Amino acid sequence: MKRIIFALVGIGSLAGAVGTTVPVSGQSGGDAAPIYGIKLPQGYRDWRLISVKRLTGAGGKLKQLRAQLGNDIAIAAFREGKLPFPDGSIIAALHWNEDSSDFDNQALAAGFPDLGLDSTFAGSAVNVQFMVKDSKKYAASGGWGYADFTNGKPGDQALHEKCFPCHLPAKDRDYVFTHYAPTP
Amino acid sequence: MKRIIFALVGIGSLAGAVGTTVPVSGQSGGDAAPIYGIKLPQGYRDWRLISVKRLTGAGGKLKQLRAQLGNDIAIAAFREGKLPFPDGSIIAALHWNEDSSDFDNQALAAGFPDLGLDSTFAGSAVNVQFMVKDSKKYAASGGWGYADFTNGKPGDQALHEKCFPCHLPAKDRDYVFTHYAPTP
Repeated sequence: MKRIIFALVGIGSLAGAVGTTVPVSGQSGGDAAPIYGIKLPQGYRDWRLISVKRLTGAGGKLKQLRAQLGNDIAIAAFREGKLPFPDGSIIAALHWNEDSSDFDNQALAAGFPDLGLDSTFAGSAVNVQFMVKDSKKYAASGGWGYADFTNGKPGDQALHEKCFPCHLPAKDRDYVFTHYAPTP
Repeated sequence: MKRIIFALVGIGSLAGAVGTTVPVSGQSGGDAAPIYGIKLPQGYRDWRLISVKRLTGAGGKLKQLRAQLGNDIAIAAFREGKLPFPDGSIIAALHWNEDSSDFDNQALAAGFPDLGLDSTFAGSAVNVQFMVKDSKKYAASGGWGYADFTNGKPGDQALHEKCFPCHLPAKDRDYVFTHYAPTP
């Protein structure tokens, strides 16, 4: 159980998974995630930005920076405030270990000596999670299928059983916690 | 001086600037930033993700989540590790106040009661900054022009005079601190 929770929030140590470029649409030829049968969507690293998040916990052992990206259907729905999300929407949540650099922070300190600035950035890759909207196929889970991949490999069944219950509180927002970040 | 520094790191309180959709290329018709003459690039909210950052300081008064996005030329250069960046590269740094939601954190606590998770996300818009590569036009500043906009309006000259000196320590990386985040 502990292992499952840690995998879901992405503490697991994972090497590799760096900078592969993939085509823009469709699914990869890899293994499908259990329960929902979702394969790693292709091209998600190129999708447009929905928002940015940070997750901390586990007594300081978990520190992640995160980005939510959406395919074209999801991005359009977010901008129009369309609920429920239309079939075909896919939301990707990319999770990285939060890292820092003395080099960066020394440059900030030199430029802004009075501010005591501290900068962190997306370090090593942790995992990526998806919500895929198909109101018929996934009718039993609010119209969404869920998938979690670490280094391209799907998590196990027990991990995926956690997804829908955890998203239930956001039912009024079609089970999506993330809001579209405003344009600065 | 204090005011300038605070504007640069984006503490300034600013309403609005929410969710405008803009065309994909070119520059807007708004005011140009001083020194470098850069207008707000169009469509930057739709550019692809380079990385994610967090900046804190000012005795707790500054807490920002940030995303770096790139136009197609910049993204290709990042992926290929091409230095210096080719002319036409534009890097956008979108800055938001870091916000949190009791609703989100209660859902996390229900799903993962043992982990003490805390989630934050991109809240209100602060400012957006750009680096625009033109090795001839901006030869005096390492080939990059700099621009800072708050709610669509460029910052003043004193603010923009800070940009290049602050980026000097990253000369070996063509004055760019940000690395391309790996693909989880």
